Amino acid sequence: MLDALFRPKSVAVIGASTKELSIGNRIVKNLIEFGFKGSIYPISLKADEILGIKAYQSILDVPSDVDVVHMVIPSKFVPQAIDECGDKGVKFVILNGGGFAEVGPEGAAIQEDCLAKAKKHGIRIFGPNCQGIINTDPDVRAYCNFTFTRPDPGSISMVALSGGVAETIHQAFSEMGIGTRMYASNGNACDITIPEILSYYGDDDGTRVILLYVEGLRDPEMFLEVAREVAAKKPILAMKAGRTEEGAKAAASHTGGLAKEDLATDLIFEKTGILSFKDEVELCQAAVAFSSQPIPTGNRVGMITNTGGPAVIATDVLVNAGLKIPPLSEKAEMILREKLFPEATVGNPIDVLATAGGEQFRAALDVVMEEDQINSVYLNFVTPFFVDAESIAREIVEVNNQKRKPIICNLMTDKRQWAGTVEILKAGGVPNFSFPSTAAKVLTALTNYNEIRTREIGEARTFKDANREKAEVILQKALETGREFISTAEVYEILNAYRIPVADWRIAADAAEAVSAATEINFPVVVKADSESIIHKSDVGGVAVDLRDSDSVRSVVEEMEKRLTAEELKFLIQKYLPGGKELIIGAKAEEGLGHIVMFGMGGIYVEIMKDVSYKLTPVTTVEAQEMISSLQAAPLLKGVRGEKGIYEDGIIEIIQRLSQMVSECPVIEELDLNPVIAYEDQVFVVDARISVADSS
Amino acid sequence: MLDALFRPKSVAVIGASTKELSIGNRIVKNLIEFGFKGSIYPISLKADEILGIKAYQSILDVPSDVDVVHMVIPSKFVPQAIDECGDKGVKFVILNGGGFAEVGPEGAAIQEDCLAKAKKHGIRIFGPNCQGIINTDPDVRAYCNFTFTRPDPGSISMVALSGGVAETIHQAFSEMGIGTRMYASNGNACDITIPEILSYYGDDDGTRVILLYVEGLRDPEMFLEVAREVAAKKPILAMKAGRTEEGAKAAASHTGGLAKEDLATDLIFEKTGILSFKDEVELCQAAVAFSSQPIPTGNRVGMITNTGGPAVIATDVLVNAGLKIPPLSEKAEMILREKLFPEATVGNPIDVLATAGGEQFRAALDVVMEEDQINSVYLNFVTPFFVDAESIAREIVEVNNQKRKPIICNLMTDKRQWAGTVEILKAGGVPNFSFPSTAAKVLTALTNYNEIRTREIGEARTFKDANREKAEVILQKALETGREFISTAEVYEILNAYRIPVADWRIAADAAEAVSAATEINFPVVVKADSESIIHKSDVGGVAVDLRDSDSVRSVVEEMEKRLTAEELKFLIQKYLPGGKELIIGAKAEEGLGHIVMFGMGGIYVEIMKDVSYKLTPVTTVEAQEMISSLQAAPLLKGVRGEKGIYEDGIIEIIQRLSQMVSECPVIEELDLNPVIAYEDQVFVVDARISVADSS
Repeated sequence: MLDALFRPKSVAVIGASTKELSIGNRIVKNLIEFGFKGSIYPISLKADEILGIKAYQSILDVPSDVDVVHMVIPSKFVPQAIDECGDKGVKFVILNGGGFAEVGPEGAAIQEDCLAKAKKHGIRIFGPNCQGIINTDPDVRAYCNFTFTRPDPGSISMVALSGGVAETIHQAFSEMGIGTRMYASNGNACDITIPEILSYYGDDDGTRVILLYVEGLRDPEMFLEVAREVAAKKPILAMKAGRTEEGAKAAASHTGGLAKEDLATDLIFEKTGILSFKDEVELCQAAVAFSSQPIPTGNRVGMITNTGGPAVIATDVLVNAGLKIPPLSEKAEMILREKLFPEATVGNPIDVLATAGGEQFRAALDVVMEEDQINSVYLNFVTPFFVDAESIAREIVEVNNQKRKPIICNLMTDKRQWAGTVEILKAGGVPNFSFPSTAAKVLTALTNYNEIRTREIGEARTFKDANREKAEVILQKALETGREFISTAEVYEILNAYRIPVADWRIAADAAEAVSAATEINFPVVVKADSESIIHKSDVGGVAVDLRDSDSVRSVVEEMEKRLTAEELKFLIQKYLPGGKELIIGAKAEEGLGHIVMFGMGGIYVEIMKDVSYKLTPVTTVEAQEMISSLQAAPLLKGVRGEKGIYEDGIIEIIQRLSQMVSECPVIEELDLNPVIAYEDQVFVVDARISVADSS
Repeated sequence: MLDALFRPKSVAVIGASTKELSIGNRIVKNLIEFGFKGSIYPISLKADEILGIKAYQSILDVPSDVDVVHMVIPSKFVPQAIDECGDKGVKFVILNGGGFAEVGPEGAAIQEDCLAKAKKHGIRIFGPNCQGIINTDPDVRAYCNFTFTRPDPGSISMVALSGGVAETIHQAFSEMGIGTRMYASNGNACDITIPEILSYYGDDDGTRVILLYVEGLRDPEMFLEVAREVAAKKPILAMKAGRTEEGAKAAASHTGGLAKEDLATDLIFEKTGILSFKDEVELCQAAVAFSSQPIPTGNRVGMITNTGGPAVIATDVLVNAGLKIPPLSEKAEMILREKLFPEATVGNPIDVLATAGGEQFRAALDVVMEEDQINSVYLNFVTPFFVDAESIAREIVEVNNQKRKPIICNLMTDKRQWAGTVEILKAGGVPNFSFPSTAAKVLTALTNYNEIRTREIGEARTFKDANREKAEVILQKALETGREFISTAEVYEILNAYRIPVADWRIAADAAEAVSAATEINFPVVVKADSESIIHKSDVGGVAVDLRDSDSVRSVVEEMEKRLTAEELKFLIQKYLPGGKELIIGAKAEEGLGHIVMFGMGGIYVEIMKDVSYKLTPVTTVEAQEMISSLQAAPLLKGVRGEKGIYEDGIIEIIQRLSQMVSECPVIEELDLNPVIAYEDQVFVVDARISVADSS
């Protein structure tokens, strides 16, 4: 779909200029200097020729077809120019200039107008308020962009709305001497979206890894679908900024977009298999390794070093991130003792010593490549003046070319004096960094990606015994009568419909009915005042627990009848369940995304300790297990100090039934099962709340 | 004391060589090429001249005094050479070579021998197994070191045992174009220690900031004392590696040293006012800013940007770190509206727009410098080709030269095309980095340092009513009888001596005494079996709680008498205290450091949630308050959901009395007050354990 944008045969620039420091001049210049393989058509009312290329008065005068048109003219002139492009049969328009949605309502109206006109003509718009695209493919060489850093060809493709961040990343690669495949920064993104670009990168054979920066997801549903498909083909490394309230505000202001909540983006990244970064420096550095190295098949690192301290730092970083530095096999140690210097440390890390040359490094590399229990190689390479650093570098490159296990190198050198060594590693595709922690973090990212890639979350269960219709009738009734919250009895009916176990209960209209309900249920019981007009029962004294006989039930109900003036007051009589562990399970609708399901322990754990886990619907069995085991308080649920654990399978089933319920009943805005009481072999919902909203 | 080492008038090299890639050649070459201002004396048995300088057969032949001697000879020859240096009156010997303690017992014996000989002659040893020192002072220019990166003069002085890490840092500064003042990497550090070097840097006027890397502290007491003194004069930025078990092992192997526990190092850094880093990259980047920028007087940042996305990222980092980006004053906004482009965003961040030139940047800078509520400036500076980036850089430098508030710049540019702009900022002392998060983290470090510097922890209280002698008598008796744990009754006596409130208690020999004790105390009571041979009372069924009458007490005691076969079995009768919050307060001796005091909530909080705080003795009032407020569960102690908080002043006093006790009684190895029961207005120790060890 975006082929003519990223691989244009011809590019016109409306607003091209002879003025040296203008964008209309720069884009023409960039296309020429980057060696664009197609035709360039400057469009200018003033000039006959721009930078040696014939200019035309109008796009309509261009003698051949035009794939891409840049517009570098004031926004008010853009709609008409789009009409002309339509007449010309142009496929893509890149709107580099500002003056659109990002400046307020007036600009937004122009943007709308442009979009409407473009749709009419079948033109796709890239931008506005954007930098454009770059494609380094030697057959294309399209620098449709007014930035200033010219990338080498490479296999990393990148997309970011923000031009500033795109440029930061771009320059980082340039400084690291790493190439780029494609580049897209689409600013206001009024038409062509990030998911479309991701999808295009996914199909591009020259793209090995995709780098994504977002400040929010405009269409999370579409993003989820596309990202899942693309992430199955190649690694997507992503960062979401605007995570703090202040950051989100800053994000909202600069591209006229809306920053969505953090949590949802994180869950989407997790669900689709995107490797998420919180730091743009680590994002860029990791991309370098992904562009050349194989993915390790496990988390066990072989470390080779010719200096002590940096190995200590790297070990800390790797071990803290959950990677292992396992002992070597006896056979490996035997080989190393034979081939390394006598004072070398034979173990893992292997300290080949500062005096080691190519031969010793090679021996160590060969050994770790052969070790079955080692999945990746971390290398500390300091270049003492008394060794032949270039021969070491050549050995590293030779082993790297075998592509058996990833090699990440911390190269400690003066890059001016050891330019030859740096060049050998670079040309040989060995990612090298200047700090041990940097190299260790990069190796961690590769390893984490393997975990993401091999994680089988399975399919969500569909419980056939669920009665969706029954639930829908109740919810629909609530919607039709304009209620936000539905009554406890109704909530219990819905839970019942989905076979989510609720502590035994009855509804009673008065004291006599309450007593006979309590007798049926068996004492002790709880009495709760139930009325649509009472939302927080405890706050109004509408709950009495641990009632052990008929007299207590009767007097409690009579007292509440006198005191509470709610409409249609009824009483919920429920089995009282002492002991057990209190849990909270909830769900909250996220626009365009289904629901976020949450799990935590009741009382202080959620509120004070912030010990909560989340997943996006539909929640699979594996994910439900993760929700439990990822809590810091998980040992309490599994059983500590001789205590028995809770009925985990029961919890997992409730989470999944709840996931099915909110997926099938999207009008559920918020649902709280609080508390759920869990025992060793049983689990019951004891109180619950549901609010509804018409999302259609 | 180290003046002749860091400012030598003459340097000799024993083992100097004409062989180009030998260390004995390199050191002479480094001295020459770095422009050493003193005399160089190569000592060689083979050559008459090395690199154009007259060589001598023996150090004794050198015609003048010698301050520093490098020895680049096999370790077995070193002791004799030291004797010769002694005869010559040499002040310092740098032992660059290996073959000492790091290779095992044989080498360790040589190292001991060297040290003994040096002491006899009044010679100080630097190393062995080390790189040496560098001093860039234009009057000195001492490159007494065999590394390969030549630093520019600067104001950062650095010390690290590890040569590899010292070199990594060194090269990082070189790559960033930042100068160094002094450099010391002392390897095995058998004589001259890190505290001595720190102290020297502290007194050096040319050193503005000290950078320290350690893998463990050999003599924590000395370190504490010196670091406190030096940190009061200038910033010390430090990193401790070997934090994981695996990392500590790696650290122990490479310099023959011992990596001490993490926690103690962190507490020492905190106590002495050292700014601690967990990442060597951030350490180096922060040092750059400390070397040129003033320390901000608060945490409120003014952000100036000419691009959107990078401001979002920086905002996230700053806000997450606790910094504020406050609104501007009305006056400031008025000025900005007048001086910036109409489309600019007037607020904080101030978006001057990509089209902003020097004038607009200057206006924004002047405004934030004038704003009283702003303490520091974060700058995003992307260099679009259509603006005069150099004039912007010049304006930034001019404002920077006012030294009113720190300025940290994220410079997004192609450093080759915009070399002039980079050079202007560099020459003007404006720290600039290539990523928004990097610049934001650096600004955070400056801000955190201000907090450390201005934090008043006060003096520890000394409670005059404490009866030290009484405690010492009990502890001494335990030591003399070879016991590790002392009995509960004795523990309570000691707590009593320090007026730490214990729930009312009596000792009873039998059931009858127990009943009368319980009657005195008032029911309900707890009965605990008490004998030196019972350490874990609960585990052997030696505790019965909530006994409400004489009969219960009698039958419990009689049953325990029958069942427990402990020696000299007695019974501790204690007031039973239901309700209240369970706390744990403890202390543990740290060799050479006094004690580490810990505080947490009882039950799952410490064990499962790992919610614990620590301080080093002596604990001041401010520190005790921090121990409480830094817990994640602190809100529970302060009171949530209408609950009353606990008696915080009582807890603070117990922590401080305990701190005084363990400081005055260093034989206390470990002490646990567990639980301490806290109410709204009272607090009592309910159980306690003390173990002793003869540390003399």
